[in-house]
Amino acid sequence: MTPKLYSFWRSSAAFRVRIALNLKDIDYEIIPVHLGKNGGEQLSDAYSNKNPNCLVPLYESNEIRIHQSLAIIEYLEEIQPEPALLPKSPIDRAWVRSIAMDISSDIHPINNVRVLRYLTKKLGISSEAKDGWYAHWIQMGLVSLEKQLSSCPRVGKFAYGNHPGLIEVCLVPQLFNALSAKVDVSPHRTLMRIFHECMQLPEFMNASWENQIDAEGLNPVAPLQK
Amino acid sequence: MTPKLYSFWRSSAAFRVRIALNLKDIDYEIIPVHLGKNGGEQLSDAYSNKNPNCLVPLYESNEIRIHQSLAIIEYLEEIQPEPALLPKSPIDRAWVRSIAMDISSDIHPINNVRVLRYLTKKLGISSEAKDGWYAHWIQMGLVSLEKQLSSCPRVGKFAYGNHPGLIEVCLVPQLFNALSAKVDVSPHRTLMRIFHECMQLPEFMNASWENQIDAEGLNPVAPLQK
Repeated sequence: MTPKLYSFWRSSAAFRVRIALNLKDIDYEIIPVHLGKNGGEQLSDAYSNKNPNCLVPLYESNEIRIHQSLAIIEYLEEIQPEPALLPKSPIDRAWVRSIAMDISSDIHPINNVRVLRYLTKKLGISSEAKDGWYAHWIQMGLVSLEKQLSSCPRVGKFAYGNHPGLIEVCLVPQLFNALSAKVDVSPHRTLMRIFHECMQLPEFMNASWENQIDAEGLNPVAPLQK
Repeated sequence: MTPKLYSFWRSSAAFRVRIALNLKDIDYEIIPVHLGKNGGEQLSDAYSNKNPNCLVPLYESNEIRIHQSLAIIEYLEEIQPEPALLPKSPIDRAWVRSIAMDISSDIHPINNVRVLRYLTKKLGISSEAKDGWYAHWIQMGLVSLEKQLSSCPRVGKFAYGNHPGLIEVCLVPQLFNALSAKVDVSPHRTLMRIFHECMQLPEFMNASWENQIDAEGLNPVAPLQK
């Protein structure tokens, strides 16, 4: 049976898994879960019974269900090691994971849809202050990432050597968010160089917002697509 | 050289690594980094040059430096596999990682010190509303965790079988936060049963808040220590 990926076109976490599946050339079927409609389809009984964490993505293959994007990707890496998304040596693996987790644990969760909703609906924060919040955490995170990558001898054409891996899987969706929110990414030359390398690859392009079956409206990062 | 762990007594992420090091019986030296004093010692030049992400923990061993608690723990698991903190089979590993990441990616980061500081200092949120925010994300996360563990055949004396592993490494620090914030944990029977099992083990006790060299004041979770 073709694995299913419960996904939302704009979800960074789902985007990561789409890239990883593409890089590993694993066929999958997208099941859209709309994070806004009907109060959020991720909160429906049907979905929350499959994934009590009520977030996307969810990976489903035969009897197996896994949520949490990085847990899914580590699983894919274990069942199909090539092409590898992680290096071989423990210290290099740790470095790659730490950069990936800087994004998945320290930037992304603070800007999750449900967090933004709490800010505006529960705390009465203005839309402007919410946008400031969103940009603040992204910019702070990108500054740290650029600092770590700009002087790192591990960096080649991509963040680790000359092939995209777990870092790009996390970085590209985060930069989509940054660009969409008009965060100034110009100081982050290493990150943006890697981003543009990635966006020339079909594995990233096919996973991106505008190429999802549930994409809405115009290409949200149109200024990128020169 | 004895590895160093840059740590703060109340930091959940540092607490995780302290437990993991104890479970693996790896000797380490604690270097305290105070997240409050002097505007936050994690932001000092000396520390941020070692860890540009400006968070604790940081693990340092000879020439090696790793930040991000789960990246450190995966590294420790790779260089010293026994006692194992992760199961053997890919699907079970994925399950354990997904539960651990529910905590490390979806509960903890939203309640990080810097996030709470932004809420009160930048957004002018009251102390009461901040406490509500803190409790909200913990309670929501614990509901999901209890739902996942309460009916899971993988659960034994501990979350995965009869030995503590990555789930407990993440769960116990999160429950310290919950109890300290007086979140009602009574509905979470499976989680609390596992918590009490853990707190009978020296590996967890020695890693806990009150047993750190930089602990301040009274035992913050005193009601627990019956």
